[in-house]
Amino acid sequence: MNYKMMGRFVAQILTIGAVFMVPALGISLYYGERQATFAFLVTLGIFAVVIGLLRLTCRSAPSAFYAREGLVCAGVSWIVLSLISCLPFYISREIPRFIDAFFEIVSGFTTTGASILPEVESLSWGILYWRSFSHWLGGMGVLVFLLAFAPGGSKGQGFTMHLLRAESPGPNVGKLVPKMRKTAGILYVLYITLTAVDILLLVLGKMPLLEAVCTAFGTAGTGGFGVKNDSLAGYSPYIQNVTTVFMILFGINFSCYYLILMRQVRAVFRDEELRLYLGVLLGSILLITLNLRGFYSTLGETLRHVAFQVASIMSTTGFATTDFGQWPAFSQSILLLLMVIGACAGSTAGGLKCARVMLLFKILRRNIHQVLNHRRVQVIRTNGQVTDEKILDGANAYLAAYVIILFFSFVVISLDGFSVGTNFSAVLACFNNIGPGLEAVGPACNYAGYSVLSKLVLIVDMLAGRLEIFPILVLFSHSTWKRQ
Amino acid sequence: MNYKMMGRFVAQILTIGAVFMVPALGISLYYGERQATFAFLVTLGIFAVVIGLLRLTCRSAPSAFYAREGLVCAGVSWIVLSLISCLPFYISREIPRFIDAFFEIVSGFTTTGASILPEVESLSWGILYWRSFSHWLGGMGVLVFLLAFAPGGSKGQGFTMHLLRAESPGPNVGKLVPKMRKTAGILYVLYITLTAVDILLLVLGKMPLLEAVCTAFGTAGTGGFGVKNDSLAGYSPYIQNVTTVFMILFGINFSCYYLILMRQVRAVFRDEELRLYLGVLLGSILLITLNLRGFYSTLGETLRHVAFQVASIMSTTGFATTDFGQWPAFSQSILLLLMVIGACAGSTAGGLKCARVMLLFKILRRNIHQVLNHRRVQVIRTNGQVTDEKILDGANAYLAAYVIILFFSFVVISLDGFSVGTNFSAVLACFNNIGPGLEAVGPACNYAGYSVLSKLVLIVDMLAGRLEIFPILVLFSHSTWKRQ
Repeated sequence: MNYKMMGRFVAQILTIGAVFMVPALGISLYYGERQATFAFLVTLGIFAVVIGLLRLTCRSAPSAFYAREGLVCAGVSWIVLSLISCLPFYISREIPRFIDAFFEIVSGFTTTGASILPEVESLSWGILYWRSFSHWLGGMGVLVFLLAFAPGGSKGQGFTMHLLRAESPGPNVGKLVPKMRKTAGILYVLYITLTAVDILLLVLGKMPLLEAVCTAFGTAGTGGFGVKNDSLAGYSPYIQNVTTVFMILFGINFSCYYLILMRQVRAVFRDEELRLYLGVLLGSILLITLNLRGFYSTLGETLRHVAFQVASIMSTTGFATTDFGQWPAFSQSILLLLMVIGACAGSTAGGLKCARVMLLFKILRRNIHQVLNHRRVQVIRTNGQVTDEKILDGANAYLAAYVIILFFSFVVISLDGFSVGTNFSAVLACFNNIGPGLEAVGPACNYAGYSVLSKLVLIVDMLAGRLEIFPILVLFSHSTWKRQ
Repeated sequence: MNYKMMGRFVAQILTIGAVFMVPALGISLYYGERQATFAFLVTLGIFAVVIGLLRLTCRSAPSAFYAREGLVCAGVSWIVLSLISCLPFYISREIPRFIDAFFEIVSGFTTTGASILPEVESLSWGILYWRSFSHWLGGMGVLVFLLAFAPGGSKGQGFTMHLLRAESPGPNVGKLVPKMRKTAGILYVLYITLTAVDILLLVLGKMPLLEAVCTAFGTAGTGGFGVKNDSLAGYSPYIQNVTTVFMILFGINFSCYYLILMRQVRAVFRDEELRLYLGVLLGSILLITLNLRGFYSTLGETLRHVAFQVASIMSTTGFATTDFGQWPAFSQSILLLLMVIGACAGSTAGGLKCARVMLLFKILRRNIHQVLNHRRVQVIRTNGQVTDEKILDGANAYLAAYVIILFFSFVVISLDGFSVGTNFSAVLACFNNIGPGLEAVGPACNYAGYSVLSKLVLIVDMLAGRLEIFPILVLFSHSTWKRQ
């Protein structure tokens, strides 16, 4: 492991975090929030000291950068950034326990949206903004941001590719690969544009600007932190519907938008993953609407709530307009299933991802065919192209890791004595970066009741879910840390 | 599909079922149980008619027999055998609804032990015997029995191999492969011997003979149907401990016993799967005992109950000496995890199987190594030998099928409105052939409350779990039924 190189890299990531904290400080100053202002200033001081120390001690010449370094850098920089970024919550005493503050910011950066706060309306605006902004930055990725906008391109293709691989969700980085740096830039421009349109539409619906910005951050990152205790339940149907549409949009692979820009609209509509995503969305809305007959007063109201909740869960956002913990078991089970599936690869969403689920089905189908006619060797195609066996191996290993981590976490957090439904949905909701689970961690409740150990496990789950397991898993691997 | 060949094969399987029903008839006659006697006689008549019809209509010359036919024959013959074998329950009116009778016998043959009966002590002895015997026959497999003892060896290696593959649990048929027919015979001789020793030890503990026979059947098949309403809670600690030991023994790969017979004791103790199995057993007993401090009056009592329940769940038997639904959440979560892992391949137990879990861990580890040093190609070894990539592909596809079926079943049965914990554990308990789940399907409850649709789904799950998914999955595949 090249520790000096890693140190310099972490320093760059921390710089981005510090720069983006300045607007939060500004908001606190504007609203005259003394404690929050103080907390942001102290945190910025700590950022400066750590960045300075890292820059001083890690001044080596750039050297070869392998996959191992890419993965470890991704994992370490997310953890260090979270450890410092949670300090405003803690220093301002708005979240009095450090583990809770850490849980909250990891939940923010990983776009999970699981909260330990019983209510949010007593928080200061600066803190609320910072909390929601963490979703936005974490959604497209802080490493991708570095690639897109930091000066100096001396690190070469290998470096950038490993970073993009480590941070971008889904089984592959898609069709945008050739020029990494440019790709990262395009992704962020698309991301900023969509977020801006969302803010505009929310403001047009008479939402106050700062609330609109925070809500759009939570939507864009598919995170789910809101600024109201009842999430989006108190807003107008217009605002709820706008958010439904944008949650769906942010769950789509961003390369689809790129293709639309390139006027290849046909290729977009032929995309197998997009079809699966939209098909599952519509099917789920239909089934739950049928299951909820008589639950709300009108069909229109039912459809609005169902579409919102389905979009929120499948895009792994976690906003709510109603307490779906009160829905019948069948509807809740569909939501649990959507938690696992998640949205598209290459979006800001979590979960297994539609592309990976599709690959697993194809692997299974191939295996059945091979059992039946065991001489024939078959290739698996995606959008008409042969899929590399390495990607299939990756999807298999991912599923194995997913199931193993899921059960391990489930057993450990059950030490706290909550019910099976609570624990199972808590792990699913954190690991898939959704936020609210069912029962005691449902949309009307929060994660504060778990012990420190359970919170640490859920923090690891959130990070593993956001970084697609391996950058976190390698941190626990002996061979990562041994000398070469 | 060679329907005539399949018909003849099903007729052979049904003949075995009919022959084994005669002792049950004898017991009913001995105890003067009129309704049960009548029911067994009618069922034997139906057996005779169906067998006769099949033999008359399916008189073709034997032809080539491929993997497809092997899988389909396994699936179809299990279903047809169950459909007829459940008739004594239904005709005797001891289980008044047909779907419940079918559920009960499938639960028996698949060695699940999930019951729709609120109590069993009012059942007649003939019915109780037949119910428990279905575990014993299903445990080692009725197809394996046919191979071992039916006259005529004209079908050749291909046929026997496909059948053994379809019915024997685990990622491969192990070290006993070369002479299939002899292998099947050795397996059954070992199975009969172990069962006889179990009966003897139970009778020495002052258990009435017929109860001892039924209990031993439930233990040997790792099934779990008992003859008392409180399962084994009312018996002496000696009987409970004997059953604990035999549940563990029947969860071990039978090739280990074969190796011991061949005096290769060293190879047995070096077996990775056996080590994992015993290690997980001991570790779980330790953790749950710690978690249950103060729950029972003495450490001895705690250890007895914990060892019994852990052995019962991990060997997927499902007997109980205490209502573990009252245990703390952590202990219950460990039991849920053991449900998924299951015991060894090549035993009578269900679950993913230790061997497969081990392979998945190795696949994951290899994938991490390949991500870190992506040029090196690695092989995976089991007991020092290189594992064929086809077996690895099989383990991967199995996991994918397992997860897909699990979630699909979970969503469908949740239509009945039970809690997430109930539904999730019901699917796990049926699919892994355990029996009791948690909450509303816990050891003190039963499956009667589910709808017909849910019962059908759980029946398919039990069959898929016992036959390792593919023989049932191919029945739903279009390409199985199209003309060649």
